[in-house]
Amino acid sequence: MYTRPLARLIEELQRLPGIGSKTAQRLALHLINRPAGEIEALAKALLEAKQTVRHCSICFNWSAEDPCEICRSPQRDPSLWCVVADVKDLIAMERTREFKGLYHVLGGLISPMNGIGVDQLHIRELVARVAREKPQELIFAISPSVEGEVTMHVVKDYLKPVAPTLRMTRLAFGLPMGSELEYADEVTLARALEARQEL
Amino acid sequence: MYTRPLARLIEELQRLPGIGSKTAQRLALHLINRPAGEIEALAKALLEAKQTVRHCSICFNWSAEDPCEICRSPQRDPSLWCVVADVKDLIAMERTREFKGLYHVLGGLISPMNGIGVDQLHIRELVARVAREKPQELIFAISPSVEGEVTMHVVKDYLKPVAPTLRMTRLAFGLPMGSELEYADEVTLARALEARQEL
Repeated sequence: MYTRPLARLIEELQRLPGIGSKTAQRLALHLINRPAGEIEALAKALLEAKQTVRHCSICFNWSAEDPCEICRSPQRDPSLWCVVADVKDLIAMERTREFKGLYHVLGGLISPMNGIGVDQLHIRELVARVAREKPQELIFAISPSVEGEVTMHVVKDYLKPVAPTLRMTRLAFGLPMGSELEYADEVTLARALEARQEL
Repeated sequence: MYTRPLARLIEELQRLPGIGSKTAQRLALHLINRPAGEIEALAKALLEAKQTVRHCSICFNWSAEDPCEICRSPQRDPSLWCVVADVKDLIAMERTREFKGLYHVLGGLISPMNGIGVDQLHIRELVARVAREKPQELIFAISPSVEGEVTMHVVKDYLKPVAPTLRMTRLAFGLPMGSELEYADEVTLARALEARQEL
């Protein structure tokens, strides 16, 4: 019932994750009301991002250059790597400003239900890269879900033969900063108790 | 921390209403993973919608043609008009498939707090159009909010002098279909009681 070009825009917006038909309509009617320059800027940003952004051939971060900004940086410690599931998690780690090593983006987590196994992820590339570059420590910054646990253990098993002395660690469990103890779930609380630290 | 073209895309997506920084990141990372054709289709839909869609010069519906599909249709009853706040509401009315008249889109509701008065809406155009085309009835399909009530009464006052015999009606109040009586608010219930119908 929308005029053809608007209906097509709504259709395209609806393909985006988390955008239902109501939201797509709202967005389309918002956009059509905005100055042309704004819509052109969005369209241009879409096309440019798709045309210029590639996976870094070393760590699989998204980047307009290859190798990516992080892999090329001389300020980074090449002996300490952080293994993440995807680029969102890499960005979350970067936001802490605490990690000064390199990354390896797996591209997801092992999930046989969704047809994602070792070969769908960048695990073999990690093994080859570790064998070649010999880092001292790998920190797994991976969400503690079933898929996350499985993935960490599979990657660890793949790495053991090629790097028997490599230190492999994972992020600590505990209470989130600023959280209320009474609302913490019991597993988190039990883990926080287990990993208690000296005052 | 995202590579430049991705950061720019996230920035552009964040300007959309209801899209925060997390959602914008999620959308951008989703899009960059999709085939180029899909991104191009979205960019094209954006540009085409903006380039081709205009307000209908008669009823202010969005349309790729002027007058719009509805104003041009010989199947429509030109003596019965429906006054709506915006095109979303026009589409909602069209979905009922019950209304066969024409529309007039006001372009919003009177809201002095937001600087929206009579001159920011298509009220004078409605008055001129009524004087010219002399419809028999205007149905106000406008949300029963404070702004909606004010707008309806202002429009009515503007129309009275030019069309003293024009019938002006509003959508009925009552229980929504499929709703539970116990959850209806008391104002709705009181209105439904007042407007009770013969069984």
